[in-house]
Amino acid sequence: MPFDDKKGLEIALEEARKGYSEGGVPIGGALISSDGTILGRGHNMRFQSGSAILHGEMSALENAGRLPGKTYKDCTMYTTLSPCNMCSGACLLYGIKRVVLGENENFQGAEELLKSKGVEVVNMDDQDCKDLMKKFIDERPQDWFEDIGE
Amino acid sequence: MPFDDKKGLEIALEEARKGYSEGGVPIGGALISSDGTILGRGHNMRFQSGSAILHGEMSALENAGRLPGKTYKDCTMYTTLSPCNMCSGACLLYGIKRVVLGENENFQGAEELLKSKGVEVVNMDDQDCKDLMKKFIDERPQDWFEDIGE
Repeated sequence: MPFDDKKGLEIALEEARKGYSEGGVPIGGALISSDGTILGRGHNMRFQSGSAILHGEMSALENAGRLPGKTYKDCTMYTTLSPCNMCSGACLLYGIKRVVLGENENFQGAEELLKSKGVEVVNMDDQDCKDLMKKFIDERPQDWFEDIGE
Repeated sequence: MPFDDKKGLEIALEEARKGYSEGGVPIGGALISSDGTILGRGHNMRFQSGSAILHGEMSALENAGRLPGKTYKDCTMYTTLSPCNMCSGACLLYGIKRVVLGENENFQGAEELLKSKGVEVVNMDDQDCKDLMKKFIDERPQDWFEDIGE
């Protein structure tokens, strides 16, 4: 049986909540193979590490470490929020075939680019992801704008 | 007078050479504003840091630290090699308007994507960049394939 997308998204959401509790942007990601092995998980580290590149998905990729190219091809990237151009580009670089996102109401990323390159994009339209992200944006709009380069 | 692209590329190439001397993938990047201020510079850190995301351009962005969104809009990203989907996506995220690359013979990145989004892409077709990259690929083909997810 393939790995359950709800479980995968829950791991990404756990990461997002951890980020929020640390005072960071509450976006989490998890790189999970088709048999359910969590290869990497992480969350946005802009404020915790002063990082311009550690979005949730990027942290998951970084925490997974160096992997052979073929390993990524069997993975799904779970993320609590529609992936931006950078994170989508990272998925394309490594040939990740599926991206499961929590929601795209608070931010619309590069889903069309991913689809145009043959990536399966699944929007879980998850209320918990929406609520956490909206809470952060309402509380710290400037910090959110910085994270998306605005 | 606008900043000289040859000088900008030379900084990226210095970074690439530093990377090579460290045993890493010899690709360098530099984020430079229109008045010539070097905001960030760096090189691929796959082997030095076991990083899956620190390509040359990503290192330059990371080393620049957190910047206001508007700062990027006045910058050029210099890179010794045509930027991959991840690095191109990072440039799009931050609204970087110009990308100057050393060459695209050893690797063809997402130049068309950048152009389609209004980014000015300049290929300097630089022999030193080509020679250094080709040397690395010839010496360590598997390490190069890993870096581009193959």
